[in-house]
Amino acid sequence: MTTTMHDGLDLDQVPELAAQLRVDSIRASTSAGSGHPTSSLSAADLLAALMSRHLRYDWDEPAAPGNDHLIFSKGHASPLLYSVYKAAGVVSDQELMEGYRRFDQRLEGHPTPVLPWVDVATGSLGQGLPDAVGVALAGKRLEKAPYRVWVLTGDSELAEGSMWEAFSTASHYGLTNLVTIVDVNRLGQRGETELGWDLDAYAARVEAFGAEAVIIDGHDVGAIDEALSRADDERERPLVILARTLKGKGIPGIEDEPGWHGKPLPQDRAEEAIAALGGERSLQVRGPKPPRIDRPAPHRGTVELPRFETGEEVATRKAYGPALSALADVDERVVALDGEVSNSTGVADFVEAHPDRFFEMFIAEQQMVAATTGLAARGYLAYASTFAAFLTRAADFIRMAPISRADLRLVGSHAGVEIGADGPSQMGLEDLAMIAATQGSTVLYPSDATSTAALVVEMADLHGVSYLRTTRGGYPVLYGPEETFPVGGSKTLRSSEDDAVTLIGAGVTLHEALAAAEALAEDGVRARVIDAYSIKPLDAEGIRAAVGETDGRVVVAEDHHAEGGLGAAVLAALAAEPITDLHLKHLAVDGVPGSGTTEELLAWAGIDADHIASAARATLEG
Amino acid sequence: MTTTMHDGLDLDQVPELAAQLRVDSIRASTSAGSGHPTSSLSAADLLAALMSRHLRYDWDEPAAPGNDHLIFSKGHASPLLYSVYKAAGVVSDQELMEGYRRFDQRLEGHPTPVLPWVDVATGSLGQGLPDAVGVALAGKRLEKAPYRVWVLTGDSELAEGSMWEAFSTASHYGLTNLVTIVDVNRLGQRGETELGWDLDAYAARVEAFGAEAVIIDGHDVGAIDEALSRADDERERPLVILARTLKGKGIPGIEDEPGWHGKPLPQDRAEEAIAALGGERSLQVRGPKPPRIDRPAPHRGTVELPRFETGEEVATRKAYGPALSALADVDERVVALDGEVSNSTGVADFVEAHPDRFFEMFIAEQQMVAATTGLAARGYLAYASTFAAFLTRAADFIRMAPISRADLRLVGSHAGVEIGADGPSQMGLEDLAMIAATQGSTVLYPSDATSTAALVVEMADLHGVSYLRTTRGGYPVLYGPEETFPVGGSKTLRSSEDDAVTLIGAGVTLHEALAAAEALAEDGVRARVIDAYSIKPLDAEGIRAAVGETDGRVVVAEDHHAEGGLGAAVLAALAAEPITDLHLKHLAVDGVPGSGTTEELLAWAGIDADHIASAARATLEG
Repeated sequence: MTTTMHDGLDLDQVPELAAQLRVDSIRASTSAGSGHPTSSLSAADLLAALMSRHLRYDWDEPAAPGNDHLIFSKGHASPLLYSVYKAAGVVSDQELMEGYRRFDQRLEGHPTPVLPWVDVATGSLGQGLPDAVGVALAGKRLEKAPYRVWVLTGDSELAEGSMWEAFSTASHYGLTNLVTIVDVNRLGQRGETELGWDLDAYAARVEAFGAEAVIIDGHDVGAIDEALSRADDERERPLVILARTLKGKGIPGIEDEPGWHGKPLPQDRAEEAIAALGGERSLQVRGPKPPRIDRPAPHRGTVELPRFETGEEVATRKAYGPALSALADVDERVVALDGEVSNSTGVADFVEAHPDRFFEMFIAEQQMVAATTGLAARGYLAYASTFAAFLTRAADFIRMAPISRADLRLVGSHAGVEIGADGPSQMGLEDLAMIAATQGSTVLYPSDATSTAALVVEMADLHGVSYLRTTRGGYPVLYGPEETFPVGGSKTLRSSEDDAVTLIGAGVTLHEALAAAEALAEDGVRARVIDAYSIKPLDAEGIRAAVGETDGRVVVAEDHHAEGGLGAAVLAALAAEPITDLHLKHLAVDGVPGSGTTEELLAWAGIDADHIASAARATLEG
Repeated sequence: MTTTMHDGLDLDQVPELAAQLRVDSIRASTSAGSGHPTSSLSAADLLAALMSRHLRYDWDEPAAPGNDHLIFSKGHASPLLYSVYKAAGVVSDQELMEGYRRFDQRLEGHPTPVLPWVDVATGSLGQGLPDAVGVALAGKRLEKAPYRVWVLTGDSELAEGSMWEAFSTASHYGLTNLVTIVDVNRLGQRGETELGWDLDAYAARVEAFGAEAVIIDGHDVGAIDEALSRADDERERPLVILARTLKGKGIPGIEDEPGWHGKPLPQDRAEEAIAALGGERSLQVRGPKPPRIDRPAPHRGTVELPRFETGEEVATRKAYGPALSALADVDERVVALDGEVSNSTGVADFVEAHPDRFFEMFIAEQQMVAATTGLAARGYLAYASTFAAFLTRAADFIRMAPISRADLRLVGSHAGVEIGADGPSQMGLEDLAMIAATQGSTVLYPSDATSTAALVVEMADLHGVSYLRTTRGGYPVLYGPEETFPVGGSKTLRSSEDDAVTLIGAGVTLHEALAAAEALAEDGVRARVIDAYSIKPLDAEGIRAAVGETDGRVVVAEDHHAEGGLGAAVLAALAAEPITDLHLKHLAVDGVPGSGTTEELLAWAGIDADHIASAARATLEG
């Protein structure tokens, strides 16, 4: 027998809903044999009040532009979130009991956007709040919509620096539409958290970071309701509700006890606990409706890309900003972010042309990628740039993007030893490996300005994480403006019927390969030269054909470590079909570089024209 | 003509030294044609007072255990640091002028421990302070030495969350030996920083994070000296000196002007500036001497490893803690860190046995790896553990470790889809690629408890970043206690003279490969099975031999994405010599997993025994 309340609850009815959420959290995790019931129970009163009285949400239309957003940064409290969905009537009791954490079901161990009510995947702690900053930024600055973004975090995850990047960014951008609810249950996975129940310490920290802190008893529904109501006030600062709670609240013998993190209750303990909570209930509750607002349908006009003269020396990074700006001219969804290096990454041209669609993330790369994820969740085509080396700062956020089903467009400049004097801390030599290993990713590494500009536009229509690697120095433009650069393609820059060896390069090594081919030609050795601008997906067929036509003789050179980059992609492409005869030389960076000129460092790394030519000769001797 | 002052300077002589540091910073960067003079000049007064009156340092013996430590978290201020070294008489003017940022020279663009006075490499902002926390932790908790750790940071880098992890950790561990000097020059690379000169905001933040903040005018040597003197006080909290400074201080027309970040002065501007600063000087200054203290020589006894019964089901993660504990029993240098998941990673046994040598880093993986770097700089054999997935949080810190010449020992548990119900956010599927692409790294992935324990000990003697990947579930112990597991080796678990195909696995896929071999044997197909417990370096020779003996027919299966893991390592090993005939099937995880049982997910990913057997049959048909 279901009691349906579609106009929300009176305050005195909230505890009943909270009890139901507790009971269902216990039932779901016990039935699954895994999960985090105690981490759910601490926040049940908070969520009961929120969903029934404050969350403006049209459960029949999860994509409604006026809907508030609810993000569980503490994704392990999924039993609670799914119990909320059940209470809203969008998940059945059967699904909760038989689907939770089961194979091929949508109620996964940690929430993902496989569920229509979930914006971003969580479960790596310290990511939900930074992602939410992106959603709130979209609402406040781009959509100019009245929705609020409600985030539930744990206290343990406040140890993650990314949370403080998020608080700082939220206050910098005046995200008064962001409400963070911290479930301070004091107990982490293996004991007490760093600050325990020192709510004053948390308050001092979030206030210092520019938010308004409210401390409440997280089991006092009156206090909860009053705190949540503050979201409706005219605000100047983001709101942070610090709720003192008990882990496992409501279960005798387990409440506030250590040793119960991530453990479902055994059947007998579950039954006792459910009885103590007054048994099962079947309330259906929906809170206030969102305002009806419209969002314009996306549209793109014809892009007028910047044009570059063949032979002119232009750094690929310098082509990025103008190309993105041209794309943004004809597509309102295009936005950009940068990590305080816009004058280096080349995005500065975009900033000048479209200042309202640029978000400076300062030197906080985790927040930059998280905001990109949040903006992607709102349908924006968000491009984020910094040095290739510093994108590794956000590796865990990039890893989570495919789980969030987020389309991230990342641009890493100053790749490789090519950068010269700044030294190894600034050289991206692991970035290709990082992105290539990301599920469903695309890795692009153009060698000239024309292909860079074209690929910036190609990225707009890609799904998943796409990555554009750019180069510091200026190199000759190789292609005329009529050329196209499909993802998964390659370009053959030199070829003849009697080529003896294939040289494959991308970025700076393509220019070195061209010089090597010249040198080899002087010795009477013809070399085919391939521009592998699309490293993932690689033009496997084209490269197999070229290598076959040069009798299995091939040199691959890359400004990256040997693992996980272009050479690895070429090998995987070749090995996808049986290999009959292969003489491959893979030139890559091995060793810790120092400072120097580009020429000195390319030679030191053994990836310059001389080394490529020598390697080509070696394949002919083998 | 050099004026030598080996007993430090009187306060009124400090400005002369500061002027010299400024002049030399300008000269060095102008001579190199690159570098960050203006970021150096803002901190020149701070460093002049510090090096001449507070830094207790024996410049003739950089490794002296009583020496204070000086870490430039703002590594781009290298002209200033090297000018300090010149003033101390350990770098010549010629080296400064001809070596800075030049090829094959030690005065690199950003400081690295190629220089004997540098503890850790910096240049990726937001790392020096977290690294310094590790050095201070060593001094306070392990060495119990009176040294202080002085850190110079910029204001831009306070946007990095890792800095707040560091402040929080420093106050948690009562690191009163840590002094952070923040050079608040207000100007970042491309304009004003997030907080500009709002020193009160910074003070509120660092105080909230448990430090004592002192705000000073960073060009008032009296105020600087007084603030630095506070390091000598009996303290309860870490000290943070917030110095309001001018970027480019002392250069007319450039001081406090935007647009001068990372730009050397042209020769004519340099000459004008040097004249304005009163010309070149040749002071040689050394400050107070450190106390003489002794440090015991390292020593290791015979390790008594835990023993496991062959056939017993033990999770490899459960073997980690006991093995590390056994190693620590006989080697005082062994310490451990964990990211609030010690009961999951298996290090809990170590914590119980050696509580004083364990550092809980809470959920702050960047700080965990940084502290490991700092501890390594002090000679400790530091092992850091968390879930494999969450090690990606610290990717940029891992990337910097080889530049720091730091030996990191990392342990990632819960690798792959094998973990089951918790879902993809908790599954490390990119960790092998991340570590393999790290310069000079070692990647180990044992399949049983015996090999895990042995490899924990092997790691103690490795240089660079070494990584041990462990598995959630229990699997049969395969090896007796007498077996050895050299890094770079492999084990052949099944072989015969008429093997038709080689199956290569590691971790859970080795057990699946063994089951596949059983199934194939029932069909009359003999398969060789190789345990590739050492993925980098791989036993290239052994694997080439096995693949050769099975006529080029090989199946590699791994619980990781296809890029950058075991399959890629096998391919690279095979391609290092000309390949004549290769029929390779590479089974790896493709797609975003959900929840499920281990069996369901291994089958979904196509890496279970059935899929391995099918792939083996396919190689025989090809």
